[in-house]
This record gives sequence, C-alpha cells and structure tokens, in this order.
Amino acid sequence: MTAGALAKAEVLAEALPYIRRFWGKTVVVKYGGNALAADKGAAGAPETGPETGPETGPAAAGGATPLQSFAEDIVLMCSVGMRPVVVHGGGPQIGALMDRLGKVPEFRDGLRVTDAETLDIARMVLVGKVNREIVSAINVHGALAVGLSGEDANLIRAAARPGGLGFVGDVEVVDPTILERLLSQGLIPVVATIGADAAGQAYNINADTVAGAIAVSLGAEKLVFLTDVDGLRADPSDPASLVRTASAGELELMVERGVAGAGMAPKARACAQAVRGGVGHAHILDGRVPHALLLEIFTDEGVGTMVTK
Amino acid sequence: MTAGALAKAEVLAEALPYIRRFWGKTVVVKYGGNALAADKGAAGAPETGPETGPETGPAAAGGATPLQSFAEDIVLMCSVGMRPVVVHGGGPQIGALMDRLGKVPEFRDGLRVTDAETLDIARMVLVGKVNREIVSAINVHGALAVGLSGEDANLIRAAARPGGLGFVGDVEVVDPTILERLLSQGLIPVVATIGADAAGQAYNINADTVAGAIAVSLGAEKLVFLTDVDGLRADPSDPASLVRTASAGELELMVERGVAGAGMAPKARACAQAVRGGVGHAHILDGRVPHALLLEIFTDEGVGTMVTK
Amino acid sequence: MTAGALAKAEVLAEALPYIRRFWGKTVVVKYGGNALAADKGAAGAPETGPETGPETGPAAAGGATPLQSFAEDIVLMCSVGMRPVVVHGGGPQIGALMDRLGKVPEFRDGLRVTDAETLDIARMVLVGKVNREIVSAINVHGALAVGLSGEDANLIRAAARPGGLGFVGDVEVVDPTILERLLSQGLIPVVATIGADAAGQAYNINADTVAGAIAVSLGAEKLVFLTDVDGLRADPSDPASLVRTASAGELELMVERGVAGAGMAPKARACAQAVRGGVGHAHILDGRVPHALLLEIFTDEGVGTMVTK
Amino acid sequence: MTAGALAKAEVLAEALPYIRRFWGKTVVVKYGGNALAADKGAAGAPETGPETGPETGPAAAGGATPLQSFAEDIVLMCSVGMRPVVVHGGGPQIGALMDRLGKVPEFRDGLRVTDAETLDIARMVLVGKVNREIVSAINVHGALAVGLSGEDANLIRAAARPGGLGFVGDVEVVDPTILERLLSQGLIPVVATIGADAAGQAYNINADTVAGAIAVSLGAEKLVFLTDVDGLRADPSDPASLVRTASAGELELMVERGVAGAGMAPKARACAQAVRGGVGHAHILDGRVPHALLLEIFTDEGVGTMVTK
Amino acid sequence: MTAGALAKAEVLAEALPYIRRFWGKTVVVKYGGNALAADKGAAGAPETGPETGPETGPAAAGGATPLQSFAEDIVLMCSVGMRPVVVHGGGPQIGALMDRLGKVPEFRDGLRVTDAETLDIARMVLVGKVNREIVSAINVHGALAVGLSGEDANLIRAAARPGGLGFVGDVEVVDPTILERLLSQGLIPVVATIGADAAGQAYNINADTVAGAIAVSLGAEKLVFLTDVDGLRADPSDPASLVRTASAGELELMVERGVAGAGMAPKARACAQAVRGGVGHAHILDGRVPHALLLEIFTDEGVGTMVTK
Amino acid sequence: MTAGALAKAEVLAEALPYIRRFWGKTVVVKYGGNALAADKGAAGAPETGPETGPETGPAAAGGATPLQSFAEDIVLMCSVGMRPVVVHGGGPQIGALMDRLGKVPEFRDGLRVTDAETLDIARMVLVGKVNREIVSAINVHGALAVGLSGEDANLIRAAARPGGLGFVGDVEVVDPTILERLLSQGLIPVVATIGADAAGQAYNINADTVAGAIAVSLGAEKLVFLTDVDGLRADPSDPASLVRTASAGELELMVERGVAGAGMAPKARACAQAVRGGVGHAHILDGRVPHALLLEIFTDEGVGTMVTK
Repeated sequence: MTAGALAKAEVLAEALPYIRRFWGKTVVVKYGGNALAADKGAAGAPETGPETGPETGPAAAGGATPLQSFAEDIVLMCSVGMRPVVVHGGGPQIGALMDRLGKVPEFRDGLRVTDAETLDIARMVLVGKVNREIVSAINVHGALAVGLSGEDANLIRAAARPGGLGFVGDVEVVDPTILERLLSQGLIPVVATIGADAAGQAYNINADTVAGAIAVSLGAEKLVFLTDVDGLRADPSDPASLVRTASAGELELMVERGVAGAGMAPKARACAQAVRGGVGHAHILDGRVPHALLLEIFTDEGVGTMVTK
Repeated sequence: MTAGALAKAEVLAEALPYIRRFWGKTVVVKYGGNALAADKGAAGAPETGPETGPETGPAAAGGATPLQSFAEDIVLMCSVGMRPVVVHGGGPQIGALMDRLGKVPEFRDGLRVTDAETLDIARMVLVGKVNREIVSAINVHGALAVGLSGEDANLIRAAARPGGLGFVGDVEVVDPTILERLLSQGLIPVVATIGADAAGQAYNINADTVAGAIAVSLGAEKLVFLTDVDGLRADPSDPASLVRTASAGELELMVERGVAGAGMAPKARACAQAVRGGVGHAHILDGRVPHALLLEIFTDEGVGTMVTK
Repeated sequence: MTAGALAKAEVLAEALPYIRRFWGKTVVVKYGGNALAADKGAAGAPETGPETGPETGPAAAGGATPLQSFAEDIVLMCSVGMRPVVVHGGGPQIGALMDRLGKVPEFRDGLRVTDAETLDIARMVLVGKVNREIVSAINVHGALAVGLSGEDANLIRAAARPGGLGFVGDVEVVDPTILERLLSQGLIPVVATIGADAAGQAYNINADTVAGAIAVSLGAEKLVFLTDVDGLRADPSDPASLVRTASAGELELMVERGVAGAGMAPKARACAQAVRGGVGHAHILDGRVPHALLLEIFTDEGVGTMVTK
Repeated sequence: MTAGALAKAEVLAEALPYIRRFWGKTVVVKYGGNALAADKGAAGAPETGPETGPETGPAAAGGATPLQSFAEDIVLMCSVGMRPVVVHGGGPQIGALMDRLGKVPEFRDGLRVTDAETLDIARMVLVGKVNREIVSAINVHGALAVGLSGEDANLIRAAARPGGLGFVGDVEVVDPTILERLLSQGLIPVVATIGADAAGQAYNINADTVAGAIAVSLGAEKLVFLTDVDGLRADPSDPASLVRTASAGELELMVERGVAGAGMAPKARACAQAVRGGVGHAHILDGRVPHALLLEIFTDEGVGTMVTK
Repeated sequence: MTAGALAKAEVLAEALPYIRRFWGKTVVVKYGGNALAADKGAAGAPETGPETGPETGPAAAGGATPLQSFAEDIVLMCSVGMRPVVVHGGGPQIGALMDRLGKVPEFRDGLRVTDAETLDIARMVLVGKVNREIVSAINVHGALAVGLSGEDANLIRAAARPGGLGFVGDVEVVDPTILERLLSQGLIPVVATIGADAAGQAYNINADTVAGAIAVSLGAEKLVFLTDVDGLRADPSDPASLVRTASAGELELMVERGVAGAGMAPKARACAQAVRGGVGHAHILDGRVPHALLLEIFTDEGVGTMVTK
Repeated sequence: MTAGALAKAEVLAEALPYIRRFWGKTVVVKYGGNALAADKGAAGAPETGPETGPETGPAAAGGATPLQSFAEDIVLMCSVGMRPVVVHGGGPQIGALMDRLGKVPEFRDGLRVTDAETLDIARMVLVGKVNREIVSAINVHGALAVGLSGEDANLIRAAARPGGLGFVGDVEVVDPTILERLLSQGLIPVVATIGADAAGQAYNINADTVAGAIAVSLGAEKLVFLTDVDGLRADPSDPASLVRTASAGELELMVERGVAGAGMAPKARACAQAVRGGVGHAHILDGRVPHALLLEIFTDEGVGTMVTK
C-alpha cells in the first residue's frame, strides 16, 4: 500500500460530507467566453475589456485543458448527484467573426448597437459555436449535455432594452420548465443567452444577468461565476485586496462606489440579486485555476469571493 | 347558417378518421434549407443544384409565409396528438456565409471538401441560424420547439466519410433517447444535422440521410421530405412523369438508373431505406404548396410521391 | 393542386388556435331526447311540449344522420384532446313506452306524478334504450363511450322533490370521481339522469339540471345544450329576437319574466347556475344543424346563444 | 368473554388462509335472472324452463333478502381484496315485459326468434332494469358498482348466430380493458349481456356463455354460477346424484349424453370451456342458500359442483 | 347445508362493515414481553432460566398458542387491508439473561440503572431474540414481517433520561418514514424499542411510551395494548371495577390518584397522550384471550378498556 | 492556491470515470466479525479461531477507527449512486458470549454442533449486537442503514445442513425483494446471516456463503470480502505469493489443492460461485487497510485478490 494510495483514500473520504450536503442541489455556473477563447490558445483580452480580442480561429494551436478540465468538473458534479446548469457568453468569439466579416461595431452613447446583422452573427456564434464546443467537451464523458438557446421552449422571454440599442434585450421572465425536465432526467443544460419576445424576435442578452435570473427561477443552491480574475477586489488594481466574503448589501455598495471594476459590475449585481432572490450562495471564482469548481464545492479550500445574503 | 359554415364543419368532420389514425404516431419531417432561403425572399437555386446560390442576407425583403405556414402545420400536427420531429439542412445559407467570408469551396473528385473552418461555418449556420429560425417560427404558438444538434445527448454518433473529404460524416448510430423524452413531454424537436464521434469531433452530415436514420430509430409512422419540386419524376424534365407511388425496390431501381436526378437521389435512397427499416410510409412533397403537410396527412388529396414497402 | 384542396387546408389551419385553446378542457353536452326521436324519423313533439309524442318504434324508417353526426362531433372533440361528457334525457321515448303499456300519466297540480311503475319504465327507457343508442353511435368509431346511470359508483345522490310527485328527484350532490377516471383514460361518459338516495331508491331527475350540476362538479370549460330550437329568444314566437349572448343575470331576469318559454326555462336556469358555479361558458345551440358542436367550438361562426358570467 | 365471542373469533381466524389465497384474484359471478325474480317475491319458473314465467311487476311484495345477501357477499369479497365481476341475465323479466306489451314470442325450430322489437325490449330490461337493481343493491354499501352493457367501450364484440334467429348473437371477442380499469380502481363491474358488432348493431347473448368468455379473457381464478338448483346432478331428477367435482372432460360427456338437463347444459359447457381456457376452477352453486358465495370461498364447506381442469 | 355452515357465513357477513371501516387504517399494537414469556411456558427453558423480572404476570399455562394466535390476528388484519405495526418490549427476557450472566441489577432511587453492559444485554435480547420470535411467528404465513430496531433509518431519535440512570432514554422524535414505506408495500413492521442519539449511542426506552409515540407519528386509527390483565380497573384489586371506556382526562386523573396500578400507569399515560395526539381510539386488552384483537376490531364484543378523546 | 488543494482536485477528477461506471450498480460487501472485534480492541479470537481453525490475521490494533472508516466508505458509495449491501458474521462475538455463559462448544467429527441454546445465543449476538453496531456506525451520517435478519420478509430460506449438526443451515433460496425495495429507496441493508425454514425454525448460516448467494440473487456488479489478511495467497505462509487475479476455475483448483487455507476456503468458493452466477467481479481485500473499499472501487490502486469469470 503506497502512501499515495492512502492519501487518495483520505481525499475521497473527506469529500463525503460535501457530496451528501449537495446531493440533488442545483448549481448554475456561468462560464465566460474569455475562458473558452483562452482555451483555444488565443490570448484574448481580459473579459472585462472590449470584445474585440483577436482569435486565431479553428486552427489555433495550444492545449485544450481549461475547457476539458471545466467539463470534467461539471460531469463530476452531475455524477455525485448535483444538478449543474451551464450558462455561457461569447464576447471575444462574436468580435472575431464580426471582424472577419468586416462588420464595424457601432456605438451610441458608448454602448454597442446591435443591428439585425450583428444579432444574426451573435446568435450564430453563441448557439452554433461556443455552445457546441462546451456541449462536445462534456459529452465526451457520456450522453449528458444538451445545448439550449433561451428561445427553446420559451426559456427566456426578452424585451428590447430601452435606448435605441437595437436587438439588445433584457430578461422579462424565465420559464425554467425545460431546464427542470432535462435536470430531472440527469441531463446537463448548456444555455446560450439569446432570448425571444412573444412575436419570436430574438435578442442578445448579457450572460451574467441571465445566469442570475436562471439561478433564481430554479431556486438554485449556488450561482458560480468562472472568470479570469481571482475574485472581487476592494481595489481592482491590488491583488491583496481580494474580498473573501461579502453580503449582498456590501456588494451593492461596492458597485455603487465603482470599485468593482467595469467588467465585474454586472457579475456583482447578479450575485447580489441572486442571493436576495433565494439562491443559497453566489461565488466569483478564478476559472483559470484547474478544477476551481471542485475545490470550491468539495473541499474547504477557499477560492475567490463568496456572496451571502 | 351560412354555406361557408357548413363547408367548414364538413372539412373538420372529414379529418376525423385521419386524426384518430395518426394519434400518438411519430412523423419525421425533413425541411430543406432552400425552403427557408425562399422564405427570406431569396431566389435560391433549386435545392438539387450547387449550394452556392445567392442570398441577400438578413436584410432580405419578402413574405415569411412559407416558414410560418410550415410552422402552423407542425403545431397543428402536435395539437391533434401526433409527434412531429423536424430535421433540417441549410446548404444555401452555409454557401452564403462562406461567400461573405471569402472562403473558396474546394472540391476533390467533384465532392466538396469540408476543412475545419468550413465545418465551423456550417455548424454556426445550421445550429445558430437555420435551426433558430425554425424554432422561433414554431414557438410563436407556445413553448413547443426545442432546437437540437446531433451532438446533444449524443443523438447522432458520426464517423468520417472515407475519401479525404475532411469533416464530412456518415451516421454511425442514432440514440433517440433525447427525442423520445422531448416527444413524451409534448415538445417538438428540431434537429440540425451535425454529429460527433466518440472523441467529440463534429462532422457535417447529409440532412436527408439523417432524417431517414432518425425515422427508423424512432419507428416513425411517416417520413416526409418537403422539397421545392413536385415529387419524384420518372423523367426529371417532364412534369407529367410524376411518380405517385413507388415501392422501395422500384425507387432503388430508379436511383440506380440515374433517373431520379442529382439532388433527388439521397432523398430517394433515404425513403427506400426508411420503409425497409420499419417506417410506415415515406413521402416526397412539394413544400412550396401552402400547408402541403396538412393536405397529405389529413385529407385524401394526393400530393407528391408516396413510398411504400 | 385543386382549389378545394387549398380550401380544406385553410379550414384545418384556422382550427389550430381553437384546438390548442381547448386541449384538455372538459365540455358537458346535454343531448335531448327529442333529437334522438327525430333521428328515428319520428316527428316528435318539440321538446318543450308534452312528452307524449308518437314514436313509430324500432322499425321506423328514415336517415340516422343527426345522431351519427352528433357522434362524429363528440369523437372529433375527443380526438383533438378535449374531454366531452354527454348527458341525455328521453321524454318522448318514455312517453311512447308508457303509451304502449297503456299507462295513463297522472298529474298533480299540473305536474306529472312518477309512481314506482313509471320510474321503472323511465329507467328502462333512459338507461336501456336511449343511453344505449348514443353509446352505440359513438363506439362505431372505436372503444370510446361508456354508458352510465347516475346510480353507478354513486355518481348522482338524489332526494325526493317535495310535493308528493313520487319518484321525481332533485340532485343532492354529484360525485364526479367515476367521470374523472373515465375521462383520464380517454373514454367518453354518456350519462342517463337517474339518481339514487342513500338507501338505494332510484329517482328520475330533470336532465337539464343534471347536466349543469355535472358541469359544475367537473369544473367544465363549457356546458352545451343541444336543442331543437335555434337558441334563446327574447320573444319565443319571434325568430328575429334570438339572443346571441347574455349574462347569468340577464338570463335569470328573462326566466323570471317568463319570456324564456316553458321548455327553455330549466335550460336557462341551468346555464345561469353553471357559469356562476365556475363553468367558463354555457351555450344553447340548435342541434338540428349538422355538426353544430364543431362550428361552435372550432370556428368563429356564431350559432345559438352564449351565456357568460 | 362469551362462548359466542370465542366462536366468532375462530371463524374469522379460520377464514385467514382463504383470504390470503384469493387476495387480488378475479372471480366472475353469473347471477341469474331467476334469483332476482325470486327476490321480488315472484315465484318464477325454474331458470331452466321457458323464459315466460309470470312476474307480478314492480309492485311485487316480499323480502328483498336474496339480492341483499348476494350484494353483501360481493362487497365482502371486494373488501378483502378480491376482484369480483358480476354477469347477469334476465329471462323472466324480459318475458314479463313482452307479455305486458302483448308481444307473442315466435319460435323457429324450437328456438326463440329475436326481432328488432324483442331486442329493444330485452335491452331495456337487462340494461335498464335488472342491471340497475343489482348495482343499487351493491351501492348501498358505498360507491362500488358500475353497470356496464357489453356495448360499453366495445367490451363484447358479437356476431349474429346463424339460423335466422334475428338479433341473437354469439360472442366473437371480449375486450376486457374497461373491466381491468374498473377493477384496478377497486370498482365492481356489473355486466348486462348485450353485445354489438362493428357496425354498432346490438345482439342479445346467452349470459352463461358471456360469463365464461369474460372469465377467460380476465384470466379469472374462479367462475361461479349462482343458480336455483343445488348443483349439477348425474340424474336431474335425483337430488342424491349431485356431482361434487368433475373434470372438464367428464362435464362435456354429461352434456353430450343429455343428463345435464335443459337449462344446465350451457352452464356446464361454459364451465368446461372456462377451465380449459385457463380459469382456475368453475362452480355451480345454489344461489338460494344465503351467502352461498362466502361459504364456497371462505370455508371448507362444500356447496354445489366444482369443475377442475 | 349444516347449521354450522350458516353460522359461519353469518359471522363473515357481520364482519363486513368493520372490514370496510378499517380498510387502509393503521393500527399500532403493543405486545408485551410477558405475553411472550408466558408463551414459552415460562418454566425456565435453558434460554431464560427463572423469571425474576419485576413484573409479576400471570402464571401462563400452555404451549406456544398465544404467540401463534397473536400472529394470526396480525396477519388477518393485514389481509383485509389494515396496516398493523407491532411494538414490543421484553423485560422478563432481559432479566433472565442478566441473571444467567451473573449481572446484578443496580438501582438508584428505586430505578434500575442501565450501564453499558446492561444496555448491550437488553439490545441483544430485544432485537436478537424477542423481535425475532415475533417476526418468525408472523412469517410462517408469508413474507410479511420485517423486524426493526428504533436505530434503523433513524426511526427513534432518543436522548438520555435525566437522573443518572445511564443508557435509559426518552423518545425525542419519531421519524416514521421507514414504517410508512414498509406499510405501503404491505409489510408488517415489528419494532424493538431501542433508540439512538445523533452520535449513534443507543438507549433502552420504555416500550409503552414508544408505542404511543409511533401511533401519533403515523396518525394511527387505533393504539392497542395487549397486556396480561383484563383491562384498566378503578380498583386494581377488584375485577368488577373494570373500566369499559374512559376519556383521556379521566385516565390522567386515575393515574394521578394512583389507582391505575404500577405497571398500568405508563400504558394509561400513553393512551391519553395518543388520543390527544390524534389517534382515533386507544385500547387496553387482555392478550391472554385468544384472538382478543379480532374480537375488538371485527365484532361488537367489548373486551377491555377503550380510551377516547 | 496551495499544492495540496491542486492535489485534492486531481484525486477527485481521477475518481470521475469510476463514479460514472458504477452508478446504480449493486455491491455486496461481506464484513467479518473479526474486523469488528478488532475495532473494539477486544482480543477476540481471529475469525477462524476457536470455531474452526487458525487464521493468520495479525494482532488487531485498537481504536474504533476501522468500523467508522468502513461506515464512511459504505456511505460514500451510497452517496455517489452505488447500491451497497452489507453482510456480516460474528464468530468472535458469539464465542465471547458463550464463554461468559459457561457454554462449552460441542463438536462432532470436528464440526461445531449448534443446539437450540447455541442458536439462541448466535442470533442474539448477530442480530442484536453486531448488526446493531454496524447500523449505528452508518446512521451517524444520516437515516441510511436498516438492519435485517435473513428471517425478515423471508429473505433467506434455509434448510438444516445434513450431518446432525443441529441448527446449522444451508441457503435454500434467497428472495431479494426486501433488499431491492430498500435499495430503491436509497437505504443500505445490513444483513445478519440467520435464515428460517418454512415452519419458522431459525438456522445459523455461514456468512461468506450468504454473501455470495445474495450477490447472485441481486445480479450484483461486485462481491467484496473484507478480511484480515492481504488477499488470497498461493502459499498461505508466504506474503509474496499473493494472487492478484484469478479465474473462477483457478480458484476452485486452489481450494481443491488445499492451498487456500482453512478460513479462506469458503470465501474462495463463494467468489467462484458468485462470478459463475453472474456477478461481475469478486474481491478479497484487506479490511485492515483504511478505506480499502474506496481504493478498490475509485482508484487504480490494486488491493488484494480479484476473481473474474
């Protein structure tokens, strides 16, 4: 009997109380487009920056480890009885295709305008590319993942966001029926954040906001944001100012004061709204750490920021 | 009581035996990419031609009637207890995007080669555009349609087609579990014909072949091809030679003799294989006729070609 | 493609929203004994008249169309997912058998007295003859209808109506359990309006009243009276005074004022009580119009009188 | 503690093995029209005689004990987990109504001809009178019995018996679905032996034959004939020749030799066919003995004739 | 037909209303250790030796009949649809084994102290001996009984009784889930009254108290104590003072006044608490009377004391 | 992020394929009485000790860790979707109580004779002591374990082993119904190996044999023997001769040749019979290694001997 074997047994035995605690619990995980872009070997701008980072395309070299590692974590959660739901964005990938098509982004009052063509491109990329890659990475382990757009079975009812931004939408209501059904069959929904209004018109919606709304609609135990930073910082430029835990109120105060940083604000707001809406805990983790999800869920190791009610 | 009212009542009463006969029966409907392209006002080459017909893009003007009419038919079938499954291709739409991206098709021995970038484009268009438009058109009537790629829950296991054509695949096996589950919940699966192998690699697969394989795996009552011709002709150039009914054997003979026409051959082969595989009847209908599906299913009006065992 | 075919397709497509709206909804249909008598070629007095109209017996010649047409309508409703319940009377048929047996009706204060022998005759005719004929007409289309008397599984608990009228009863309580069970199995209950008290004593009960009470107990979406007049008239003798829609209150006022006409009063009262008791709408239709039920339910054609809350 | 109390406890304890053995088992009981006629105080011809015995009508005086006692037995069987099905005839009652209507029976080659009017009368009496009285007697104990005609849900598919006898039918096939459903809900089906052909035409069928066919279709554990004799006699005129047990073969031999007696022959044939068709045992009991069913089923007391395979 | 046969039929028919009234009802029966000791002839079989427990008990005569008779009663209750639960103690049997092991009971303030070794002995005897004998006696009739300790599936959560008595426990909470599951499968739980605290420490608990707590947790219809006296007496020394019925309040008053007698007090308190907690009726019966349970439940014969709310 | 955290995440990720492979699979684990004796720090003879022959187990160390560690493993298996069944013996504990009671073992032809008193003692110890301790150790983690004797719900039908050995039994048939039901509710059956014959007479049965028979009856994926040796040795005295894998045939050959060692023979025979009877694999592990079960099931670390078909 090697020492390594005994150590392995200890880790498994230590995971027992966590496995039992989360059995049957729903966890919504927001997986950022940057993580996927990084996965492909593309440098990728920080997710909080403009969505125009270069991508070297399907031929991109480099290790696929981050996405594969993420897929393993999701499958393990599923295997021990949890009910994970993946929600994803795809900013860098949308930017890359627009770039290739010579489509010049248009801004109004500093916000990107989404015309019909841009929406078409965003939908193709989110539903037909990013979503597919996540589904494929999971399904290597078995017939588990099912890709969904918010348009499927009227999952996300959207409305145009005021301000003449075109087909940028806000979540009006989430109907989680199709998610509940897939989860009850042991399947893992992977959701691209396109919504539709009653007339069938599609809208592109902020993925952080959708993740929070879905977590509330499912009464999830946890909402987890996998980002490319190490968590929320009291001072965005100071790694030592990482916030370990915060209440919804504290978080909202930070957003108001502007300390959360540009790209972090929607995540912080979504966390605060989720825990107020009944979600047990919300987390902002560093998705670049291998198996960050497993560490957060099955061990006492603290990673990133936890938001409580 | 107007004469019109009485006539309406008669039509409904006459539909009764058909409604009862097909209650709970599964019908797989292949909806061609050309039909959708036409829907957008694009002229579109005949589906049997090369997949490079011009498309005027999302801004294309024109009536949306054909897709809306098709969606109504599918919803009516669902409403009277049938279990429709939609399978679709998207050749013209793929060609249009490749064109815009300046991607030049490559051919080997007369067959198009699908490199990684072409596959990426095909998948974006099929899953992220064509599939979405069909789902949206149906869901105007309620939370009914769920878009699927063959990668979801390992629906279509594919293998590379021999011949150095790149990521062009053949159906290895269909696992209809996810379809059965959605159907049993009253939902309408809409399937984009991308498959994956065990390692998660995606392949583009001929939609006619996929439709046939899915119909067999579900033990469907009917397999219906909605095309842009009026049916199978003994002489492709002679409208008067329309074949009303044919057996699987007769069909295969026609394909062998080459009379079926280029684009019609895979449909004819899929029909023959489907009825041999247990599907009740296969049909090749003219999708340009409004409500062609309803006429075929709920009345005695003959439209197109019917294939029997 | 003939113009007729296109027109057929249009009618089916137009029925779609109605089919979807009424899926799974319960509809209680009162089918009068007069309609059945007419069916047999017997002239039959208007249902609102005395119950002694001549009947030429089983050998009566003539078309069976009205009953067959009614049966088709009920089966079509069932086929598209509705849950129809048929309630019927049988005044003319009871009168005919009494006549043949030389039984002279006895009246007290203008109301017919039902002695034990009369009850026996009424029960034989309602349960053993009228009910059977309706069940048979439906079951030509499949194993669908099940005949019930209110005595079965204690469906209708009755009490003697005060006034020394013998075995004429009032509905005390309806236990719809057996109806719910048959409906949940896709079967069509056909109810003869005999009730029983706790000691097992049977009573003859007004069929209009029973239809209303059953509709309320089932929380039905609709209660429909198929009569041999064209609806409720403000002036019974003036066809032009047909009332298209009325509220429960307006209806009760009409009954109070006596304008509803003798035979129409119990129907009008039952309609008013039903909509007050939670039934969506109540209708008084002309059962002589072929497929009147289909027109009312699946088209915008207005037939007869509709009562709303 | 009285001796009576102890004796009571012993009887209950002794019934235990029988209760356990028959839990969940189906028992088809044929209840003869004569028993019911007797119940009404009418003398009634022996059931084996012509069906024309006088009946004094609904006003007949006398104790209702036999029917009440029979109903108690059926309810007790149901209460301890058995699944009883009652099948009944009604010869004397049919004869009485024909008599009152002045309808003269017509015979051909010694067999009664059933014209349309006779069928109408038979159906009214069986379904609308005899069936009702049995249902009522049972339902005094709770919402248990549901009356059925063989026409309901296509329970009994019939065909005309050859020989120009009119609407006298033979059983073509029994569809026990509706019986299974009612039994699975703890309800007691009471079946009047009218059948229908595919066109909806009704036929009167021998109740003994129907009881046997239903027992076989349900895979019943027992088939019991309650008659007004003490069992099958080797010599019909000699009470001492009562046959206690017989095999199917022995029974058929007795019928062939004519020793079974006129009215007993169809019962004997039905018993033989039933045990050959998979029914556990068939019994011919004396229904005049109070609680004869309970004695046969729950004690070792032998009553009547038992037929084994 | 013998008179005995008729009498038997009468007893069965008379049991009908009781069988119907108690169908599906739960009855908790406390079976005392004395009854079982008596069952063995009490004469010091090797297994027990002289019975020196503090309970005096009657000098039980005879063989194993009482346990077998009890088992028959429980099985009959189960067979007619009731849901019996057996709870048992085992004081005499525990005392006998302690004696053989030379273990001297220790008392504090007149109460027996249960040290770890005594607990071990009590648990072995209750779970490994008394429980087994009851289970075996029942299972002679089929696969019916399942022995349980309160430790199984956390059925009885216990806490140490204050006062330094060692491992004597009080019921903290009953989780009836495992009982409900076994009952719903037609099985008969037989419960030994050992409980456990959250840390897994076992405690011996008074069986009368446990029986009452289980009855309340199951919402039982009846709680029955089978004892070795004829019921509760107003004057313990006067058989003529047997109390036939008492309310919870009257019972508590008797306990307070001390008239209930030493061994009867916990039973009386348990009865009072049970009916206050929602149990329909509580009974104290003389278990020495053969089939006392059957007489109480299925006949009008009064045996012992009945407690009502 | 510490290196320890990363290592933990790796172990969890590596367990993934094993967790997925064994989801829903049944594993029968035989837990020896020696392990439990060791657990208590009790000297206890080696399991094969006074009862039959020497077992070379090392001197068991003290502390309650082994049982707690075993309980954790069983609960973890349950938590990740496996269905564990525990079967146990208790030789040392039985010997200890017999010793205390001054009961001298009797042998016939070298085999222990089990008289009624010895059976009584064995049953008390197995069901009332060993079984309880295992159940308690598991239920610290939740309401999971339910203790069973083979007598419960007729789980193990036994017959006397020939040879005048008294109440030593052989397994006649296993009825796994009660196990299946508990497993389907997520509960963990813990089985003491007492069986009963049709008359209710109990027998003591070899626990190794019972474990094998139960594994076969459940169609288990694995049968695991936790012993106090490191596996099966080709030469019992040479640790280096440990057999890593063996086929059923090889195992039987070893038993025949006598190399398996006295106490190991029944385990070896049970392993061989189990894999021949359809069990996937059988294992003989060293239960003294902490979490030996986890290592065998969730890692590639080889521990002990694996038997394949």
